[in-house]
Amino acid sequence: MTDTTARFDIAHLARAELFTPRPQETLDFFTKFLGMYVTHREGQSVYLRGYEDPYQWSLKVTEAQEPGMGHAALRASSSEALERRVASLKQGNVEGKWSEDQFGYGKTFEFQSPDGHNLQLLWEVEKYVAPQELQSKILSRPSKKPLQGIPVKRIDHLNLMSSDVTAVKDSFERHLGFRTTERVVDGGVEIGAWMSSNLLGHEVACMRDMTGGHGKLHHLAFYYGTGQHLADAVEMFRDYDIQIEAGPDKHGITQGQFLYVFEPGGNRVELFGEAGYLHLDPDAETKTWQMADIDTGLAVGGAKLPWETYFTYGTPNPLALDQHIEKFSHFGPGAPVEDPEVLAAEQTIPDDIDHSRAVSGSPV
Amino acid sequence: MTDTTARFDIAHLARAELFTPRPQETLDFFTKFLGMYVTHREGQSVYLRGYEDPYQWSLKVTEAQEPGMGHAALRASSSEALERRVASLKQGNVEGKWSEDQFGYGKTFEFQSPDGHNLQLLWEVEKYVAPQELQSKILSRPSKKPLQGIPVKRIDHLNLMSSDVTAVKDSFERHLGFRTTERVVDGGVEIGAWMSSNLLGHEVACMRDMTGGHGKLHHLAFYYGTGQHLADAVEMFRDYDIQIEAGPDKHGITQGQFLYVFEPGGNRVELFGEAGYLHLDPDAETKTWQMADIDTGLAVGGAKLPWETYFTYGTPNPLALDQHIEKFSHFGPGAPVEDPEVLAAEQTIPDDIDHSRAVSGSPV
Amino acid sequence: MTDTTARFDIAHLARAELFTPRPQETLDFFTKFLGMYVTHREGQSVYLRGYEDPYQWSLKVTEAQEPGMGHAALRASSSEALERRVASLKQGNVEGKWSEDQFGYGKTFEFQSPDGHNLQLLWEVEKYVAPQELQSKILSRPSKKPLQGIPVKRIDHLNLMSSDVTAVKDSFERHLGFRTTERVVDGGVEIGAWMSSNLLGHEVACMRDMTGGHGKLHHLAFYYGTGQHLADAVEMFRDYDIQIEAGPDKHGITQGQFLYVFEPGGNRVELFGEAGYLHLDPDAETKTWQMADIDTGLAVGGAKLPWETYFTYGTPNPLALDQHIEKFSHFGPGAPVEDPEVLAAEQTIPDDIDHSRAVSGSPV
Amino acid sequence: MTDTTARFDIAHLARAELFTPRPQETLDFFTKFLGMYVTHREGQSVYLRGYEDPYQWSLKVTEAQEPGMGHAALRASSSEALERRVASLKQGNVEGKWSEDQFGYGKTFEFQSPDGHNLQLLWEVEKYVAPQELQSKILSRPSKKPLQGIPVKRIDHLNLMSSDVTAVKDSFERHLGFRTTERVVDGGVEIGAWMSSNLLGHEVACMRDMTGGHGKLHHLAFYYGTGQHLADAVEMFRDYDIQIEAGPDKHGITQGQFLYVFEPGGNRVELFGEAGYLHLDPDAETKTWQMADIDTGLAVGGAKLPWETYFTYGTPNPLALDQHIEKFSHFGPGAPVEDPEVLAAEQTIPDDIDHSRAVSGSPV
Repeated sequence: MTDTTARFDIAHLARAELFTPRPQETLDFFTKFLGMYVTHREGQSVYLRGYEDPYQWSLKVTEAQEPGMGHAALRASSSEALERRVASLKQGNVEGKWSEDQFGYGKTFEFQSPDGHNLQLLWEVEKYVAPQELQSKILSRPSKKPLQGIPVKRIDHLNLMSSDVTAVKDSFERHLGFRTTERVVDGGVEIGAWMSSNLLGHEVACMRDMTGGHGKLHHLAFYYGTGQHLADAVEMFRDYDIQIEAGPDKHGITQGQFLYVFEPGGNRVELFGEAGYLHLDPDAETKTWQMADIDTGLAVGGAKLPWETYFTYGTPNPLALDQHIEKFSHFGPGAPVEDPEVLAAEQTIPDDIDHSRAVSGSPV
Repeated sequence: MTDTTARFDIAHLARAELFTPRPQETLDFFTKFLGMYVTHREGQSVYLRGYEDPYQWSLKVTEAQEPGMGHAALRASSSEALERRVASLKQGNVEGKWSEDQFGYGKTFEFQSPDGHNLQLLWEVEKYVAPQELQSKILSRPSKKPLQGIPVKRIDHLNLMSSDVTAVKDSFERHLGFRTTERVVDGGVEIGAWMSSNLLGHEVACMRDMTGGHGKLHHLAFYYGTGQHLADAVEMFRDYDIQIEAGPDKHGITQGQFLYVFEPGGNRVELFGEAGYLHLDPDAETKTWQMADIDTGLAVGGAKLPWETYFTYGTPNPLALDQHIEKFSHFGPGAPVEDPEVLAAEQTIPDDIDHSRAVSGSPV
Repeated sequence: MTDTTARFDIAHLARAELFTPRPQETLDFFTKFLGMYVTHREGQSVYLRGYEDPYQWSLKVTEAQEPGMGHAALRASSSEALERRVASLKQGNVEGKWSEDQFGYGKTFEFQSPDGHNLQLLWEVEKYVAPQELQSKILSRPSKKPLQGIPVKRIDHLNLMSSDVTAVKDSFERHLGFRTTERVVDGGVEIGAWMSSNLLGHEVACMRDMTGGHGKLHHLAFYYGTGQHLADAVEMFRDYDIQIEAGPDKHGITQGQFLYVFEPGGNRVELFGEAGYLHLDPDAETKTWQMADIDTGLAVGGAKLPWETYFTYGTPNPLALDQHIEKFSHFGPGAPVEDPEVLAAEQTIPDDIDHSRAVSGSPV
Repeated sequence: MTDTTARFDIAHLARAELFTPRPQETLDFFTKFLGMYVTHREGQSVYLRGYEDPYQWSLKVTEAQEPGMGHAALRASSSEALERRVASLKQGNVEGKWSEDQFGYGKTFEFQSPDGHNLQLLWEVEKYVAPQELQSKILSRPSKKPLQGIPVKRIDHLNLMSSDVTAVKDSFERHLGFRTTERVVDGGVEIGAWMSSNLLGHEVACMRDMTGGHGKLHHLAFYYGTGQHLADAVEMFRDYDIQIEAGPDKHGITQGQFLYVFEPGGNRVELFGEAGYLHLDPDAETKTWQMADIDTGLAVGGAKLPWETYFTYGTPNPLALDQHIEKFSHFGPGAPVEDPEVLAAEQTIPDDIDHSRAVSGSPV
């Protein structure tokens, strides 16, 4: 970290925008199943918030030809902190521009991660104030917990796929004051990094895009705070035909209780249980997972992350999810003509991951 | 069911005996990790009970050359009920004999399932009475919950592998008054049956031995009653090097929350969470899972049951567990010389299971 | 128990009817908050079921001038069992009559408990069959878990207030084959009994009416099966102005996880968490709680059951709930003129309960 | 807040010292029941840590004539931050001195809160490094979760009783950069404040000493992170005769899941479940609880906090706990001669608290 004043300049992940080719189904997913409130509609977009999100919205669902992340915005700790972070980015030759066109938020600095993800920084927000009938008796809760589905509390974190994990990590550390709480290395190469500007294990993570892509979203996560709600949610998803990828289980990395599903538009969404490990120690070393330990890093319990999706699929993706699975599920000499992209992924993904007991469907 | 008086003649599964080639490690598993109390030692055996087991012991750990189930004993609802069940077995030409040589229990009728499992029926038991310092303030609890490990409450159920599921099922229905709550069929063949003499989804289950073996144990299960304790237990097992097979997750079949591990002697042990579906309706139809629905039957969440163990390994087994996994993990044209046993299992296990999203490691 | 054939003749509690002076609010309580399905409407009644109740309905909400229990019906284990139980009642000079006028059920024997509660026995039922869109992938589940509120699975048990606990208990034991799993005694007087015809700790309980009343309902209970859902539910009730009496906590008696609330019509409803202690041992002794142990019997954790409601209020009640609380909350020499009913309750309720750390609001 | 650089200068609560007149029993409480590791013994003190505490110890148990808090130490975010905070204290005429005599920690600034609590600031720490056999596979976890009792993860927070809540609050805000997330007011008087230097709802809270005392400890809290573990713990405490005060339930204030017990030495210890509300919004307003809302603030569920302890007892205390309870449980005209201290407490505690449904045992 080159700039000690940067350490607390970013407060947290305030919002993200998801693109979806199936806007109504995606909206239903977040409202009917995850119990999010709709606070605004504008153009091809609908704005939503969990019942403990503090601002007007934490999620914008926008109709688009392909799934993917429109943008994600981090809120600074103060107006001055925002200026400092923008100055740092500019000093680092990161191009960007100011805009002020999002409902419920003020002026915003738009820039890209080294891998091409659309990121934003902002300070000005409009706090959500519930109408009388939605006011909770619990004062720290901005609105009543809905009676619909298994409601998420708030947006939690972002996981970005990148062709170069180290570049993204360095940028978050240098310009945004994040510290890297944990990382995964394959020999000398960083293939995953979990970064935070506060106590949380991560507000932004970055994992290597094993297919060589750029600027994709691996997943956007929402917070329950309670492990049982993952069990409740997965049962709901099974019965209502939402595609489950893996979980509920607990990652060794971050100690996060995870459940991964694909919302109907094709984006991977993580539901997050308990708070995971909170990084109170201010000068804790970054924990580095070697390939030899990756089993527990991926899953403490018996979960198996599917090779054909978890390690190879992000959004936007050249293929629809079912086509992607079809293509990446065929391995070995007996398989149909080996696709070069699959072959490339095979060569990129470390053998220790292929052979991890926490991974399913890897090539022989 | 041919004999209506039989319906409630068996009360419950009272005890089981496990053989182990590593007696000390197996004993440590049940005492250090599962918090069971040792109540007696005799010869090469140690007798244990969970803190809510009502009798002197529910588990006997006996040193042997190979893992496996020594026997399992069901307790009748009364002395007369025991006589009726024994008479029914004899009338059905099931051979057996009376013995009375087990610590803490009286006269016992020993017989075999149609597939060769050692089963017993008994009525006479010695109730466990805790010494003063182990008496719980909760009167229905026979002893305090231990402060050691993640303690199981009691023995829960038994899962037998069989070359002929229907024969075993018919015998339990006809002679022991069990009803079959759920079953799995592959076309016309029953490959799984869950049977109970009371409200529980199953006290005895039977699954087809896909390797063609006879009289093996698939698993013995112990009860927590609380889903969170599976999460606690799996974390303990991971850190203390107990091999986890799958879970925690929930089967659609029985709605049982499962966690499968292998105790150090090689036997599969299931830890069971909440009570699952209780069969209160006295004339409910048996639920039949077709292959088309087997995904949810196997796991409601994202769990994947390993082909190379869950569907092919029971005890006793010709190979040690790690050798078995090595052998059954090699599939496809590029694999080492195809073993006839693996080939046989491949042909026996239904394609719908091979291709289930709830199964990992199946052949291409 | 005088009749051994009786032991399993009753299968379970099938349904109950609640009277309410506020039918719409009571209905909203069971549908919006407890996620019950409406299956029928007829006259001044609405029929509901939890998502795992097997028949057309388990709860009938009927408009009436006062709250209370219209009736409760137990289902027999077979047609013959029903005949045997009716014969036993008649032999015991319990008057009754056959009727056949309830939606979704066939002929029914109506009689009264020794204290005047309306009870029924029946065998003929119409099984609930879900329409396509409500069919669950989990075959033992008669319908999908709703997305509304914190849904209960099914009806669980009934708790009757009685001027003479022993008389009610004896009747259930003698005529209906129930066994008493636990009881509470104050010296030589039984002041509580928990009775079951199956494995459950109780399907029917009876507690002494400390106000000297007859035939009242203490509470009707519904089942979650999961402790966390009590925490979810109580938060919902607090924010949506449903009056909470006590819990969540765990009774030592039955090991039941409880949460007591008053539905808007004035009836006490219990939400039940995990399954509690399952009585597998067929000849277990009845556990008797003495006054010296009553603290843990009432609550294992720190909960305090309110003297002014839990020990004195049932439905129907001469006063509305808020008036009852007002009246029974005033104790001691400085209190307004002592009411004779309150005085009678003071004299009837054992001092050990008054002074229990698990009771609040008792007289000085 | 007068000093914006102060905001993140304190990282977290690192450790606390408890005095106990029963050192062995207090030690047993923390080791046998809460599963804490002993890392050091010196003089009349034993040093302990939870399995996720990052330093050599978070709790020091010291033999003394009376219970109470020896001191509590906050760790700064950096060496410079420590200097800044000490400078601010000195500028505010808060006397203090540097010391360096605590095992596992370096130089430390000792001072007192405006109400006389012994507080400390420090930067230099010795990180805990587990021996091989205690190393967890989960890299963010400094040591394996013990197999003993229901183990706490780490120290969580401190609650101080004070004759002047505002003075203590102002000092933490002004000199230590804490923000007040929530507070309780009785008309114009602050009677509670919850303060944090990070995302947590509170690392230090202050509640009015209703008996007019100074410098007492209300409670020290340890973190589970999982609600179920409170249910597990309270059952353990009940069976092993640890005195339970209230809970498990959830405060509206902080949304903390609480369980209060008294360790054998007489200090109140809180066990904390899930993380509670995390304050991500950097400029959120302090939430102010008025007396009209205090019910939900105290408990969301049905818990009742005992007037005679929760609102009147801290350590050190002129009377032993049982004597205190005896004295403060006698109210009203019929009570034994009214004690002036009890009378003073009656006059000080707001009527809204006396009459809250979340309080038990208040005077008539």
